[in-house]
Amino acid sequence: MAAALLALTLLAGGPGGGDVRAWRATHEVEIVRELADLLAIPNVASDAANIERNAEAIRAAYARRGIAMELLRSPGAPPAVFGERRVPGASRTIVFYAHYDGQPVVPAQWTGEPWKPVLRDRALRDGGREIAWDGIEAPLDPEWRVYARSASDDKAPIVGLLAALDALSAAGRAPTANLKFFFEGEEEAGSPHLERILRDHADKLRGDLWLLLDGPVHQSRRMALFFGARGVTDVEMTVYGPSRPLHSGHYGNWAVNPIAELVRLLGSMRDDEGRILVAGYSDDVRPPTEAEKRAVAAVPPVESDLARELQLGRTEGGGAPLTELILRPAINLHGIASGGVGASATNAIPTEARASIDFRLVPDQTPEKVRERIEEHVRRQGFTIVHADPTPEERRSSLRLVKLVWGAGYPAARTPLDAASSRAVIRAVEEAVGPTVLLPTLGGSIPMYLFGDVLNTPVVGVPIANHDNDQHAANENLRLQNLWDGIEVYAALMSRLAPNWDAAAAGR
Amino acid sequence: MAAALLALTLLAGGPGGGDVRAWRATHEVEIVRELADLLAIPNVASDAANIERNAEAIRAAYARRGIAMELLRSPGAPPAVFGERRVPGASRTIVFYAHYDGQPVVPAQWTGEPWKPVLRDRALRDGGREIAWDGIEAPLDPEWRVYARSASDDKAPIVGLLAALDALSAAGRAPTANLKFFFEGEEEAGSPHLERILRDHADKLRGDLWLLLDGPVHQSRRMALFFGARGVTDVEMTVYGPSRPLHSGHYGNWAVNPIAELVRLLGSMRDDEGRILVAGYSDDVRPPTEAEKRAVAAVPPVESDLARELQLGRTEGGGAPLTELILRPAINLHGIASGGVGASATNAIPTEARASIDFRLVPDQTPEKVRERIEEHVRRQGFTIVHADPTPEERRSSLRLVKLVWGAGYPAARTPLDAASSRAVIRAVEEAVGPTVLLPTLGGSIPMYLFGDVLNTPVVGVPIANHDNDQHAANENLRLQNLWDGIEVYAALMSRLAPNWDAAAAGR
Repeated sequence: MAAALLALTLLAGGPGGGDVRAWRATHEVEIVRELADLLAIPNVASDAANIERNAEAIRAAYARRGIAMELLRSPGAPPAVFGERRVPGASRTIVFYAHYDGQPVVPAQWTGEPWKPVLRDRALRDGGREIAWDGIEAPLDPEWRVYARSASDDKAPIVGLLAALDALSAAGRAPTANLKFFFEGEEEAGSPHLERILRDHADKLRGDLWLLLDGPVHQSRRMALFFGARGVTDVEMTVYGPSRPLHSGHYGNWAVNPIAELVRLLGSMRDDEGRILVAGYSDDVRPPTEAEKRAVAAVPPVESDLARELQLGRTEGGGAPLTELILRPAINLHGIASGGVGASATNAIPTEARASIDFRLVPDQTPEKVRERIEEHVRRQGFTIVHADPTPEERRSSLRLVKLVWGAGYPAARTPLDAASSRAVIRAVEEAVGPTVLLPTLGGSIPMYLFGDVLNTPVVGVPIANHDNDQHAANENLRLQNLWDGIEVYAALMSRLAPNWDAAAAGR
Repeated sequence: MAAALLALTLLAGGPGGGDVRAWRATHEVEIVRELADLLAIPNVASDAANIERNAEAIRAAYARRGIAMELLRSPGAPPAVFGERRVPGASRTIVFYAHYDGQPVVPAQWTGEPWKPVLRDRALRDGGREIAWDGIEAPLDPEWRVYARSASDDKAPIVGLLAALDALSAAGRAPTANLKFFFEGEEEAGSPHLERILRDHADKLRGDLWLLLDGPVHQSRRMALFFGARGVTDVEMTVYGPSRPLHSGHYGNWAVNPIAELVRLLGSMRDDEGRILVAGYSDDVRPPTEAEKRAVAAVPPVESDLARELQLGRTEGGGAPLTELILRPAINLHGIASGGVGASATNAIPTEARASIDFRLVPDQTPEKVRERIEEHVRRQGFTIVHADPTPEERRSSLRLVKLVWGAGYPAARTPLDAASSRAVIRAVEEAVGPTVLLPTLGGSIPMYLFGDVLNTPVVGVPIANHDNDQHAANENLRLQNLWDGIEVYAALMSRLAPNWDAAAAGR
């Protein structure tokens, strides 16, 4: 009996995991049905009535587990659903974050309907066939997938946490940390009220660690953790030529060509290896730590497969791995337009040339400093800068004139990989599901900095969705094995994170 | 009487001009009515029925002056109207070129109708008011304008030549050279059959000099002559990134950014002063002659007014005059496109970036050589060149990949300013209307090279239209004084060019 238990424990990858897995194995149908019920409620952030139905359903589901949830409201915003489970004697408080809203849909692009969950025996693109909900019985094939908006992004964690609570409860094991749950209702709309809500309820929302349950696991299918995200700011750039289009034969070589000016300006900012050429731009960049470098070196290589799939004959950064490159700041030229090309081409010198650029920031850059450095650089290239449409007089009196319209932005965030809390998370997850990919940062931007700024709480990202989940697109889906893994990971975090942390803090 | 005649001669600016001016002064109404009748026939090259009506009207008008015209036909082309007046004892043959077709119209943009000629007392943009055709009497105000499609481009010369013939005839003066008239019917459609017609009728069309009666006079309002035109070729360029758009946060710095590659490539070809940076590109460029340099130096400066009007704070070429700069080859970036800007911007690395470029050629560049030099240069920048959409395998196997799709093109033409024929033209025109602006070349491209290539005949351009004629646009118009000047110039060319030429050839 003891030997059998030990074997089960080892199979499950760590202490206490076996009972969670065993419980799940006998409750798969109920778990998937609870997810499907939640997925059946439309959840675009702007759809206020349905958003309230989602919030209420989540509140009721947590209430059934004895966790009283409240709706945190901010004028004009979907409510955040918040609740807490205090554990007597616990010295740590973990806050689980997920969001219950989803991306808008284009129903015509879906096979089926976005809010009518469908079970399929494998991915649609691999010929997946529909499985009738009636009569499904455990064990379910772990390669089956649930198709619906938000199946992976980001309702799966909300239901996965419930299953983890149920499994621990069934095993008679209490969490070892105080647990808080915070479910946002407008993440896919850009979280316009998140800062407000965090500030208004800071005392309630503070903890020792926030865990962001969002995003996909690594392309290698291994579980992943992310410890940061790049910040972002952006600019719309307009360079001016003659006030009306001029015949390129009669005036070519004499009239200023705005495309040539824009090309020179952009070429002075970054090269085609992604290297940033702006003086002082990287002065604020905090170099990667040894722990981050080690983590990057251990990430399973996916680059050559990805390059092949994307038909890329080379990559930027001299062939360095993707995970290493996204530790650096990036200047992304994402749009350029002037005159016409192809069938729209005319032999005319255009009146203006435009570029749209995003800047991905890393610690310790700030949007303000980036803007300042870029504007200094643009001036050094001989340009006069305006921030609104120039007057004819401004055009006449400037040798080179550019309009810069900056978007808002926010800084990067990065939690140290070797902090005790980070080491505790890593250990808990690896105990549950084995070797895990450690990503010092996401390449993309999410406002992770807010939790540090407003709540002074570190953050770690714990994604569970399959990497091929078609999030944000039609036919979003969740592979069941990813949900099963998620339940074990969440249970491990609830029960193992605090003791691991104590051990890590004690240098063990 | 003799003194009075001499005074009239001097007033007219040269020998024999007074009688032409005097005849015109008493026949202004008939001249303008003959022009208006021709302008009333719609003349877009693709409108076959009306094009035939134009050709027939022109044939009939020249027949009334005793010049038998024939219609030179090429399958699918509007006819060229050709005729000849042989002069006993004449040793030179001059060929007058004009075109009777006009640019397509957008009637809604016109004040009035494009093919219903309107007389106005000054330019529309200066508040010009309509003058009723009934009851106009000579002398007409020379600032009046005729509004209609092709009033200036290019039916005015066809009617101006008729008036010149009439005036000489009334004065009892015969032309001193054989005169040929060639009126094309599809110049505004790009002259697709001109080479065919010239080749098919080369014996008939050869002469000692072709005079191109097309285009506007100098912006200073002074009469102008042009002795060449730049050649042209063009390319559509596509640089490739990933095969699908990628999130610029997750993949920025790693995935190839096609805008960055295009920017580098374009920046390597020309700078923002118009200087061409392609190695060997200018090896074939014939330097300007001393006569051309002198002509350029004598052109009245219009640049600073023009720059002010166009709201340009600087010009390319380090502030050199327009007329000097168009003696050089130009690389004109006239279109660029990739991803989205402004409201269409997305945080995505685009799949491709495109540019559309025209190359203006000068003697002795050829489209073939330009293409070769550009392709060598592009390869030196590390690009593999394809001329059709690349296959996935080509994309995967190329470090940098560009598709180049070249348009057809043709070389420049330039008649020496100091050739005896050129000096004879200049003298005849200056005798008629005074100091004339000598332009060694047009900046724009017209296939002047054809006359040299096919007919081995030099060409000089003799424009008469006002510079503010709105050619190719709505409300095209001709200022009467420009028509009056044109008649005197044409009469001078008919009667004075040959003796001047003999004198120039004899070194007088």
